[in-house]
Amino acid sequence: MTQPIPEAAHALLDDKPTGHLATLRPDGRLSVNPVALLFDGTTVRVSTTKDRKKYRNLCADPRVALSVPHRNNPNLYIEIRGHVEMADDVDRVFIDAIAQHYMGQPTYDLDPPDAERVTLTIVAEQVSMPRIPLSKNPPNAADGA
Amino acid sequence: MTQPIPEAAHALLDDKPTGHLATLRPDGRLSVNPVALLFDGTTVRVSTTKDRKKYRNLCADPRVALSVPHRNNPNLYIEIRGHVEMADDVDRVFIDAIAQHYMGQPTYDLDPPDAERVTLTIVAEQVSMPRIPLSKNPPNAADGA
Repeated sequence: MTQPIPEAAHALLDDKPTGHLATLRPDGRLSVNPVALLFDGTTVRVSTTKDRKKYRNLCADPRVALSVPHRNNPNLYIEIRGHVEMADDVDRVFIDAIAQHYMGQPTYDLDPPDAERVTLTIVAEQVSMPRIPLSKNPPNAADGA
Repeated sequence: MTQPIPEAAHALLDDKPTGHLATLRPDGRLSVNPVALLFDGTTVRVSTTKDRKKYRNLCADPRVALSVPHRNNPNLYIEIRGHVEMADDVDRVFIDAIAQHYMGQPTYDLDPPDAERVTLTIVAEQVSMPRIPLSKNPPNAADGA
């Protein structure tokens, strides 16, 4: 059931993008928020904390969708639809890897002392790439209109 | 029931951002895609065409969420949760306004000849701004971790 992430998206996913993660709230509304992410060549993972709405939402309903635009050209993007598997990041290994990748520092030091980190592994059931070619178009959102 | 868009978000919404619009698919999966948008000082609107999955999804379920990051700092964003009201853009007035705003050209000329444009008016039931201050932070996604 898991779909592979196409080669054409690997560079985009490695380039410190900001993804937008959609979840379903217990009140029935949709939610979508910016997230940092790590891609290990196969799987996309995101970090959150147990006090975030995102965590509450995913405990009740693991369905997600993730839109990841190219950092310098939002017309180029990958969409991943599926669900998450959650695991406690007890030693903060994953959030520190995020800090190393995005911030160039060994640890993520912006959490309050009691923050409980959780790693969200995105199980890709469906993957879409944009129909527009992955070329060097100028940054411009209107093709996504 | 409609929530106002806070003043602090107006500049962000006017600055040709790429929003990420979450919808629910008939198969029960979430979807989220980049979109251009226009903000008239009160309401956010998005254009789509009747052959897009987005339109199909919204005909069956009008719920949406929209994440709009600052164009130059993805840590700064507004999230709007609610639903859409749809109207045919028969004279292409709205999609042409998108082209004027984003592309600096009078008409949107990238559609196939038979494209039927629809304008999505986002009815904001809930609005969230990030807890991080709307200051001139350097672009960096890791605060959104």
